[in-house]
Amino acid sequence: MDKKGILIVISGFSGVGKGTLVKELLTRYPDEYALSISATSRAPRENEEEGREYFFKSREEFLEMIDAGRLLEHAEYNGNFYGTPKDYVLSQMNEGKNVILEIEVQGGLQVRKQFPESMLLYIVPPDAKELLRRLVTRGTETLDVIKERMERSLQETDYICYYDRVLVNDDFETCLSELRRTILEEQSRIDGIHHYIEKIRTELRNLEF
Amino acid sequence: MDKKGILIVISGFSGVGKGTLVKELLTRYPDEYALSISATSRAPRENEEEGREYFFKSREEFLEMIDAGRLLEHAEYNGNFYGTPKDYVLSQMNEGKNVILEIEVQGGLQVRKQFPESMLLYIVPPDAKELLRRLVTRGTETLDVIKERMERSLQETDYICYYDRVLVNDDFETCLSELRRTILEEQSRIDGIHHYIEKIRTELRNLEF
Repeated sequence: MDKKGILIVISGFSGVGKGTLVKELLTRYPDEYALSISATSRAPRENEEEGREYFFKSREEFLEMIDAGRLLEHAEYNGNFYGTPKDYVLSQMNEGKNVILEIEVQGGLQVRKQFPESMLLYIVPPDAKELLRRLVTRGTETLDVIKERMERSLQETDYICYYDRVLVNDDFETCLSELRRTILEEQSRIDGIHHYIEKIRTELRNLEF
Repeated sequence: MDKKGILIVISGFSGVGKGTLVKELLTRYPDEYALSISATSRAPRENEEEGREYFFKSREEFLEMIDAGRLLEHAEYNGNFYGTPKDYVLSQMNEGKNVILEIEVQGGLQVRKQFPESMLLYIVPPDAKELLRRLVTRGTETLDVIKERMERSLQETDYICYYDRVLVNDDFETCLSELRRTILEEQSRIDGIHHYIEKIRTELRNLEF
């Protein structure tokens, strides 16, 4: 039995640095991880390539994918659909890659329902002041937007308890190695279970009474 | 914040010895654990006491409990309903007890849906021969019944992957301490998350811009 990859959902407060963590994980361990590519019904922007940033779909195609159960999760933002195509994720996992989905909590819980074996990780800041500092330092958002994001973070705290692991992103390198260690442990746990299941199935089928 | 108990589902192949493990856990650590008491629509047998073996309900009362969402899981066997009342489980957890549900895989998966924070443990034998040996040694079942159970064990292997932990019951004492250690670890994980959530909520609410 070849080693299959696992499905990892990474969520976290806006500004916590989860994007940087994911990017670094993919850069350092390109053989271990693959980033899930979303499908969207919005039009491609200049420089965006089919199958790189997104799989671009018409609105009808997207609705058909929902109906056919071909999405692990989906949502509508500003009149456009976004979602995670199951096929792409499964093919990457079959190639032995751990597939990372960087998505919102609502999407994460949808994935959990469709794919109970997925691991849900939530990245948090050491404290609220530090989260605010990071959002302000970025310098890309107005104060109103930052207030909105902090407000949403407060709402998101209702969902953290549904996640498997909570990782504190205080020191970046520490968090990155903890992230990788957590994933490796989960992979080894799942491998162990699958290995046992194969073994006991064979034994039960061949048992002589 | 007082320490709350967690919800633990224990399932496993017929004959694996999960009942003995649960009984021993409750006997040795009566302050830590409580066994969930099921509701049933079947008539009480002699010596059975309301609230000890079961909560006895009429068929209508049971159906009302289902409709009102007052059961964590339920199933029908031989024309009688059996299920896990939510109220009893929650009140025991609030008193700090870890509540154990010894139920079938189908029930376990129902609990997971309604209560994502529950921990699902599956107890397995070291191998199929040993499972057969235990069923035969018990001496309470005919060979036909034993064959049926082994057949069901094979079917159940489809569901093991949805469980959080798989524990091998080879040496009883080793398995018992691993069981307890696993529960303590999970409790400490959940405590840590709840503690963090309380802390960050307070901080986010009181943040000055």
